[in-house]
Amino acid sequence: MNSQFPTYGLSELRTALLRKDMLSVVRDAFIRHAQSGVVAPEPGELLFSDPPGDCHIKFGYFKGGAVFVVKLAIGFYENPMKGLDTNNGLVLVFDAKTGKTIAVLNDEGWLTSWRTAAAGALAAKAGAPSSVTALGIIGTGHQAELQARWASESLGTQRVVIWGRDLAKSARLANNLSQQGLTAMAVKDVGELFAQCNVVITCTPATAPLVPAAMVRPGTHIVAMGADSVGKQELDPNIFARATVIMTDDHAQCLGHGEFCHAVTAGLVSSTADISLGQVLAGQARGRLSEEDITIVDLTGLAAQDVAIATLAIELIQSRSIEGGRKASEGTHR
Amino acid sequence: MNSQFPTYGLSELRTALLRKDMLSVVRDAFIRHAQSGVVAPEPGELLFSDPPGDCHIKFGYFKGGAVFVVKLAIGFYENPMKGLDTNNGLVLVFDAKTGKTIAVLNDEGWLTSWRTAAAGALAAKAGAPSSVTALGIIGTGHQAELQARWASESLGTQRVVIWGRDLAKSARLANNLSQQGLTAMAVKDVGELFAQCNVVITCTPATAPLVPAAMVRPGTHIVAMGADSVGKQELDPNIFARATVIMTDDHAQCLGHGEFCHAVTAGLVSSTADISLGQVLAGQARGRLSEEDITIVDLTGLAAQDVAIATLAIELIQSRSIEGGRKASEGTHR
Repeated sequence: MNSQFPTYGLSELRTALLRKDMLSVVRDAFIRHAQSGVVAPEPGELLFSDPPGDCHIKFGYFKGGAVFVVKLAIGFYENPMKGLDTNNGLVLVFDAKTGKTIAVLNDEGWLTSWRTAAAGALAAKAGAPSSVTALGIIGTGHQAELQARWASESLGTQRVVIWGRDLAKSARLANNLSQQGLTAMAVKDVGELFAQCNVVITCTPATAPLVPAAMVRPGTHIVAMGADSVGKQELDPNIFARATVIMTDDHAQCLGHGEFCHAVTAGLVSSTADISLGQVLAGQARGRLSEEDITIVDLTGLAAQDVAIATLAIELIQSRSIEGGRKASEGTHR
Repeated sequence: MNSQFPTYGLSELRTALLRKDMLSVVRDAFIRHAQSGVVAPEPGELLFSDPPGDCHIKFGYFKGGAVFVVKLAIGFYENPMKGLDTNNGLVLVFDAKTGKTIAVLNDEGWLTSWRTAAAGALAAKAGAPSSVTALGIIGTGHQAELQARWASESLGTQRVVIWGRDLAKSARLANNLSQQGLTAMAVKDVGELFAQCNVVITCTPATAPLVPAAMVRPGTHIVAMGADSVGKQELDPNIFARATVIMTDDHAQCLGHGEFCHAVTAGLVSSTADISLGQVLAGQARGRLSEEDITIVDLTGLAAQDVAIATLAIELIQSRSIEGGRKASEGTHR
């Protein structure tokens, strides 16, 4: 017979998961993915129109790994008007040898946010010039805040510049980040951001280019992560024609959606012009050849990231429970 | 903020769900599906080789419905050697207007078994001749037992004939069914089954035809449900060339896998030779034109069935809880 499984909530996940551990396992996940060490079929997608929403389902496992993971990330974009969070999510962890349920992580979408933040921070570092003038963040939402915090740390800069279509939101985020110890400012024009920053992360739900190619100076490194579905786009495809290094998290996925596909479709670059971010993180390829290069990372999100974070969460929570149990048990002997 | 959600286990589901209610909502689900009233993208599939296993992920919602459903059905085929059940599963139910988690149904795979049993019973009736001599079941597993019980009731026959590759298993199932009030017998040869039965349900994991076309007599109705993945097959494709009515649960899915695709690929029938089971259940098409027809239903499994059963389960359990709560609350006023 099957038994009940534990459900762990957001507070347990927040306590268990440290940023450095998440960066470490997500880095490992990109490398495994690049080395064909992950089984991850095409993700599922369920779309809603009234009200607008989506549910992305990613699933997979590390070859030889102890678990498999099914991850749901849900967004309903009019929720804030109802006083509800936009995001929700669940991560389900199963035994890869028996199919039995190990745990449900009721992460409310946070594990996806964190693994995406980790990917952005790793990608920002992977192609950054040797001297980072400032980190530019295009976008003002929840992921923009995480990117500012995580990537500024990985790049070793305190200077963050924010641009979004709504200046009030940009100013609010900059103010929020300043209170967290960063030197953050909002700018009115995206050109100002590119004038100040040589590492730029885009994290918006845009469906048309926000970043014109002419604004991108030599020596700039761009990480684009907003285009997680067909129909989304953040970068002018002409930037790809000027780039020396193009990194993708997954070649096929970035040809299906993301930014790379737009440049390929426009005939600006060959469909094999990209290298894998995992190869760069493994030290098998270079993310930047010279200080004057324009470099790009196109991130669309990998099941491998979800497998990595969920595996880490389970290990940490369970070892803590055993530790807790041991202490409690020692207590009774006194 | 998001709140915790309830998890309902198998005992609650068993108590709440009655066979007649499940038949009713699954019938409705087939009709909705045929009338384009269901949003159900292509299901996900995760395969394992060491040990062999699979995880099927179906997801969807009824247009205008209050919930969306993500259903996982997991099978690990060497589990019995370890003293574990082969099947596991979880059904996740979300609010289709906000994306919030309504409940997790820890059904251990039973909701999939039941909705499949309901589909078989409805499909058996949809093309059955007016006088059923006996119900033939090809297969000896868990679903074979459910089919024998559910379809014999829908057909109004007590007579069940079992054939499987392992005669001992066939005999065990026949004995088991006899103890449940059916007149069941096991036969050594599949030809004996076709000699006695004019409604036959196949529910095996076969990867090569078990049912030779020459054995199928005029007036026979066949329901094939075993081929739920690419590479599986139960029927000789030549049966399709002899059939007057071919029903599929989903046209595209049955062209991708199932039985219909083998007949189409072999050039025995046109790729548009099928009608939808939902149309027949809605009374918009006939499942049998004459008593001498050979008729076939090809079932591959629909997310609509999962949505239907999960919605029913939630409604029944929650109305019961409210009822229980009301009683408890009345109690405190005494």
